Order: sequence, then C-alpha cells, then structure tokens
Amino acid sequence: MKVQTLKAIQHSGHDQDTVHTAGWIRTIRKSKNVSFFELHDGTQLSTTQCVVDNTSALSQVVDTLTLGSCVRLTGILKTGLDGKHHMEIHVKDLWVEGIADDDFPLQKKRHSFEYLRTIPHLRARTNTFNAVFRTRSILTRAIQNFLYDHDFVYIQAPAITTTDAEGGGEVFRITTLNPEKDHQHFADDFFKKTAYLSVTGQLNLEPFITGFRNVYTFGPSFRAEKSNTSRHVAEFWQVEPEMAFVGLEEMMDIIEAMTKYIITFTLKHAPDEMVFFDTFIEKGVLEKLHATVQEPYARITYTEAISRLEEHADCFKVPTTWEGGLLSEHEHFLTDVIYKKPVFVTDYPKEQKAFYMLVNDDQKTVGATDLLFPKIGEVVGASERESRHDVLKQRILECGLDLDTYQWYLDTRRFGTCQHSGFGIGIERLLRYITGMENIRDVIAYPRTPGSAEF
Amino acid sequence: MKVQTLKAIQHSGHDQDTVHTAGWIRTIRKSKNVSFFELHDGTQLSTTQCVVDNTSALSQVVDTLTLGSCVRLTGILKTGLDGKHHMEIHVKDLWVEGIADDDFPLQKKRHSFEYLRTIPHLRARTNTFNAVFRTRSILTRAIQNFLYDHDFVYIQAPAITTTDAEGGGEVFRITTLNPEKDHQHFADDFFKKTAYLSVTGQLNLEPFITGFRNVYTFGPSFRAEKSNTSRHVAEFWQVEPEMAFVGLEEMMDIIEAMTKYIITFTLKHAPDEMVFFDTFIEKGVLEKLHATVQEPYARITYTEAISRLEEHADCFKVPTTWEGGLLSEHEHFLTDVIYKKPVFVTDYPKEQKAFYMLVNDDQKTVGATDLLFPKIGEVVGASERESRHDVLKQRILECGLDLDTYQWYLDTRRFGTCQHSGFGIGIERLLRYITGMENIRDVIAYPRTPGSAEF
Repeated sequence: MKVQTLKAIQHSGHDQDTVHTAGWIRTIRKSKNVSFFELHDGTQLSTTQCVVDNTSALSQVVDTLTLGSCVRLTGILKTGLDGKHHMEIHVKDLWVEGIADDDFPLQKKRHSFEYLRTIPHLRARTNTFNAVFRTRSILTRAIQNFLYDHDFVYIQAPAITTTDAEGGGEVFRITTLNPEKDHQHFADDFFKKTAYLSVTGQLNLEPFITGFRNVYTFGPSFRAEKSNTSRHVAEFWQVEPEMAFVGLEEMMDIIEAMTKYIITFTLKHAPDEMVFFDTFIEKGVLEKLHATVQEPYARITYTEAISRLEEHADCFKVPTTWEGGLLSEHEHFLTDVIYKKPVFVTDYPKEQKAFYMLVNDDQKTVGATDLLFPKIGEVVGASERESRHDVLKQRILECGLDLDTYQWYLDTRRFGTCQHSGFGIGIERLLRYITGMENIRDVIAYPRTPGSAEF
Repeated sequence: MKVQTLKAIQHSGHDQDTVHTAGWIRTIRKSKNVSFFELHDGTQLSTTQCVVDNTSALSQVVDTLTLGSCVRLTGILKTGLDGKHHMEIHVKDLWVEGIADDDFPLQKKRHSFEYLRTIPHLRARTNTFNAVFRTRSILTRAIQNFLYDHDFVYIQAPAITTTDAEGGGEVFRITTLNPEKDHQHFADDFFKKTAYLSVTGQLNLEPFITGFRNVYTFGPSFRAEKSNTSRHVAEFWQVEPEMAFVGLEEMMDIIEAMTKYIITFTLKHAPDEMVFFDTFIEKGVLEKLHATVQEPYARITYTEAISRLEEHADCFKVPTTWEGGLLSEHEHFLTDVIYKKPVFVTDYPKEQKAFYMLVNDDQKTVGATDLLFPKIGEVVGASERESRHDVLKQRILECGLDLDTYQWYLDTRRFGTCQHSGFGIGIERLLRYITGMENIRDVIAYPRTPGSAEF
C-alpha cells in the first residue's frame, strides 16, 4: 500500500476518505474515551492530529508509543474542523515502524540552540530547524530559477585546486600524504604538488563567459580561518554568477533583482515557515522582508560612506578613516541606523580588495561593491573584473602573487578579453537575513568550525 | 547601450531592426565587396553571420581581427534568409573589445580531445565542449526540477567529514598541517582530528528523512583512487536522494522515472546540442535516447544475471561466478548484448556491498540495485537501507569498521527508525550516455586526476 503524504491528504483529501499514511509522533495525549497523537511526516511544518478509540485494541499500541516513534496507519479522514486542526484522522489500523528509545533527546520542552548544535543529525525534527532547512531548500530553488530564467549556464567549478586563489592564505591542504609520518614531499602526493580546497570558484569560472556569456557556479567554498564567531564556518555555500558585457551599475541592478526575487519566492513558497520565524525567531521579520523587496536599495560610494560615518564618530569604538576600512560596527551603522535597508557600497580602495578587480581611473579605487544587509553585514561581494591584460598582470605582481600560477587566468585577457563582472552570494548569510536566525551554525546541516567536524 | 543576446535577436528580432550585440569571432572571410564574420556570443550553439561593406571604414577594423577576438557592434538585422543562415547582421558600427593574440590555440582546424584537455579554460569555445557543458547545465536543471516537483528537500551534505564513510579507504585527507615538515599530530590540526573529503553524502543525509521524509544532496564527491581510466576522476558530482517509507521496488520505479525525465528534458531543452552529438559524436544517439525513454528498463536479480552470463562463458576473459561479481565485460554483455537497454541488477551478495544495505531474508544478499546503462555501466547505485538497529550494528562490526564513528548514524535506527531507501546518480556517467562523450574528463569543466589539478 502506497504511503500518502500528510501534505497531499491536506490538499486533496475529502471528508470520510480512507487514508494510509505514516510519520513520527510529536505529542501524545490520553483522555477518557480517546487517545490523541500528533503526527509529523516532514512534508509540511504542521502536524496532523490522529485519534484512537480507547475501547479498540489499538489503544494498547498507543500505550507503547514514545515521542519520536515512527508509525504507519490507516484511518478515516475528518475535514472541516475548526481551530488549529483543519483535519484529523480517526485511526482504524496502526503499525509501529520504530519505537524511539527512552533517551530520545527531543522531549516536550524547549531546547537551546547550543544544545541542539550537539545533535545536528536530529535537530531537523524540531520546528525551528525543520523550518530553517526547508527554507534553505526553497532559497536554493529560487537561486536556480532566477539564473535559469536569465539563461545562465551552470558550471561546476572544482573544489580541489592548485591555485592559491586570492592569496589570502587560510586555506586547507588536501593530501594523500600523512603528516603524522616524518617529512614527506608534495611531489609524491596524489596531485604531485600542493593542492588546496577552493575558496572561490570565480577564477575557474571566468574563462567560461567566453563560451556562454552568462555562467555561474554553486557549491561549497572553504576557509581555514580559526575564527569561532557566529558568522564564520570552515565550509559554506556560495553562488557565483559571472557575466560578459556587464559593468558595475548593471550588475548592481541584477544583484538587486536577484536578491529580491529570492526573498519574494521564499515568502511565497515557505509561508508557514515564514510565519513561524515571525512569531518565534525575529518578530517583524515578515514586515522587514516585504519592505526589503518594495524599496530600492541604497547605493553609496565608499568615500561617501566614510564621510557620512565621520559625522557620527562618537558612535564607534574605532572611528572611520579612509585607509582603515569599514569595520562591522560601521557597516551596521550604515544599514541599521542611516539607511535602514540594504546598502550597496561601491568603489573601495584597491588596497582593501582582490587583485582581479577593475582599477578605476582615479588609480586609487576599484570597481567593486559589497551589498550590506541590516544586522548581517556583507551578503554579496561583487566587482567588475580587470579585463586589461597589462593592468591585471601588474596587479598580480603588486599583490605579491606568483605570476606562473595565474598564466592560464591571464589567458582570458589575451584571447578576446571583454568587459565583465561577477558576484558571490553567501547563501547562509542571506538565509540568516530571511529567517532571523542569528548564528550561521544554525542554518547549516552539519557546520564545520575549528575543532569540530563530527557527524 | 544594453547588449542584446544573439539568442534574443534570433527569437524576437524583426527584419530591418537596429540591433546592438557583442561576441567572439569564430570565422572571418573576405570577398570582393564585403567581408563576413561569424559571431558567437554563448547564448546558443550556432553562430550569426555579420556582414561589413568593404568600402566603409569598418573594413579596416575587420582587417585587424583574429579568430577568438571579441567585438561589439551595431547593425541592421536581415531575417528570412535561406540555408544555414536564417538571419544576418549588416554591420554599421564596430568596436574591438579584445583582440586575440596570434597564439590563440583554437584555430580553424579540428583539435583532438587530448589536446583540448590541456586547455580546459578554453575548450568551451569549441562547438563540442560548448555543447557538452550547456547540456550538463540543462541536465542539472532536470535533476533539480524532478526533485522539487516531487517535494524533495535539498540538504547540502558537508564535503568535510571525520567519518571514514564506507570504510573503502581511497580518501583525501584535509589538513592545515604541512606534511613537508617533520612529524606532526592530528590533534593539533584544524579539526583536532583526522578529516577527510567526503565520498558520499548519504550517511549525513539519512537522518534528515525523519525531518522531511524525502531529501537529497547534490554536490561534489571525492575519491583518491589512483586509476587513470576514462571512467575515473578524483572529483565528481552526484545527486543522492533518500526516501522514507519506500522499498526497493518502488525506488526502482522512481529511478526509472527520474532518469527518463532527465533524458526527455535534455532532448527538449538542448535540441541543437543533441543534433550536434548525433552528427559528430555518436551517430544514432538520438534514436538510442528516444528508445531509452519509451521502453521499460530490464530488471533482473544478480543471481539470475550470473546464470544468464554463464551461458555465454566463452565470450568473457574472466568467466562469471556468483562470488566473483560482475566485471565490466559482464555488465556490458547484459546491457549491450542481452537486453540492449538499461538494466537494473538487484540483490547482490552482501560481501560485495556496503554495510548499510538491507540484509535480505536469505542472509546472503542485500536489497540493493545497480542500474547499468549500455556502454557506460553503472550509472545509479541504490539500496534499501538496513533499518534494524541490531542488524546494522552487527554489519558494521562484520565489516571491520569502528563502531564509535557510527554511533550518531546508528541513532537513526534508535529514534523512530523506518523503512527507507536511497540512491546516487553519478551525473558525469549519465551525461556520457546522453552526449556520447567517451571520456569522463571531457564532461567535467576542470577534471582532477592523479597528478593533475592544474588550472
């Protein structure tokens, strides 16, 4: 007998239908004549009430059930009910698939997020994390839709690289050697040289614009930063689009349209989850998101931003200077206090940014922008790329990078170079903005942080 | 001025429209009164003919152009032409974005796939690889659609793991230690223990069925196998769905529906590319694929397969035995000679398969299936999972694995276990079947193989 989903029953079931379904017990309650349990099968956030007649033999089965146990059942559907339960199932047959042992960690009380982080394999069985991970899935669908609808070709950039990407250090080595043995040589390693986990797919992606014009990569990126904060993890996902014949202004239009599309799509396709976040995680998040998609984002140059912030010098631990860059407190002041919405900051000092960004005519700034979101900070990093071969080569040298490593990348500028731009969206950060979840560890299935990659 | 795509012009342009577009030069030809060049902008496989009047000043610009160079232009659209060119553009203005240096490797001749593998960053600029990578992108869209339409929740399983997955060895270590230095301790490493690149997302994914019922992961997987064959790479992508309340038979129905959906979607959405493959890569591939989606796949048990193959013992270098397993030549005989279509082989000897597969009542076989495709071999690996706690624990011990490592995985069987099944599709292998490309290195943007992770 095929197991119907509770979502399908909810959407197309009729009163008095016989249904066959299955799921996990969220609560059990016994009264004089009947027993109730709430069933959750993962196809929707809400549970379905199931009723068992205490005079039936099934009542004894109910007595054996514990929270978290898995059952299959056949029953009669009752619809058109009031209040919390729009439907319930009157159970006629009940089979136990799996009893949950007594030490099932998710008992009927509120558990702290810290505690739930110690059981990442179980936390999707709580309402909060069930809502978070379904919303994450819907957010990725929005990303895929937007890029497909705009004719982007999906290239999977490799996770393994021998290019030390942006020269930022903080990379993981990958090896088949064993560092616990004595001195070995990378020449004997699997790739016959030092290999790393990629920090970005951008460099690998850029050459593909000359084949497809608009391309993107979407996969995991890695940072070996020993930062134990609510914003840092060693493995995260980013989507990185790259576009030929697009400059900074047009790219900002695209970024704004894309992030607004993602938010709108999520609001529409995760309505129960979004109400849940608004009620339990961040009061007012729905209103915030509706405002975000309705108003144009602010756009301000880095130099203007510094000037505006200098007017509020007494608000900061570290006052702003042009050379000093925007610290977190400055970014938050821009988004949370001055503009109260997402802000594009453009044209950063070139010393603060990567070698591949377009050097502006002033020779001091680059054609880059960070999109900052209230409370979150940078969610999108973007730039027009330096398409001039000689300038790019000069920048690689200036930044102290190894020219040999980048010969193939420089090829892009030798064989039909063109104006092009690209950006990266850290999906965990955008997801934090959408859900109101404060810690990045709570929007990743199995977060990897210093000293922690169990499970 | 916004740059129009050649695809958009082709679809909605009218005769005598003024158009503004850009792209890369594929061929140049000069005749007495006019010059012609073929422009490719990546939005479609075909090129667009552009015509320049030799009496205009633009003729001198054309004289500077080389193959691979990038230009922008404004021109008048001529439609309704015959033959290969349904439209052409009469150029009125022409700007050079980037000249291709004389050593541009893709000159007007046929290059071998071996040679093109040495320039992975440029090969999408050839027709073959342009068709391959666009088809790959469309194939991933088909996967996303099928799973979204069937209410699967997308969980990103981590690439970094400290679980030695299936105990198969052949894994990459990831580390912030330096093996070129003397003896070090993994206790000092970033994760404070030995960490690996994941060979499968399955173990991390399984617990999420109790939150969502149907889930999947889709990302890179890694193998440190030192096999230099046309079928092996160190980094590849697989999609791994996992479903509660589904057994082997129903899962085979789902796998058959999903692979047929992917092929049908690709035929529909990459029509030009598929004609190209049929003409230049594998004659008859279109007919083959149409047959694949129309006929039911064969289903045969492992034991039956061995019997059938024993009838043809003289066809094989290594004759089949029940204990010896199905070698490549045996698999190919099943798909290419006996059935001439995809074949599900089910119920393999448990010694040949992983610890997490359902032990059948005969105690000798497991509820697993490999889906074999003609010429390619295994494209999908699948099994009903062993949901019984005690049996699973016993299997872990039998396979000589460390029980401590799998305690969290065993939790799934202690806290509301249920019948469940899952499978993995290696997308490169399916893509080889669809495109006719013979070498896995030729369907991956930047293939990683022993001794090779440049670019």
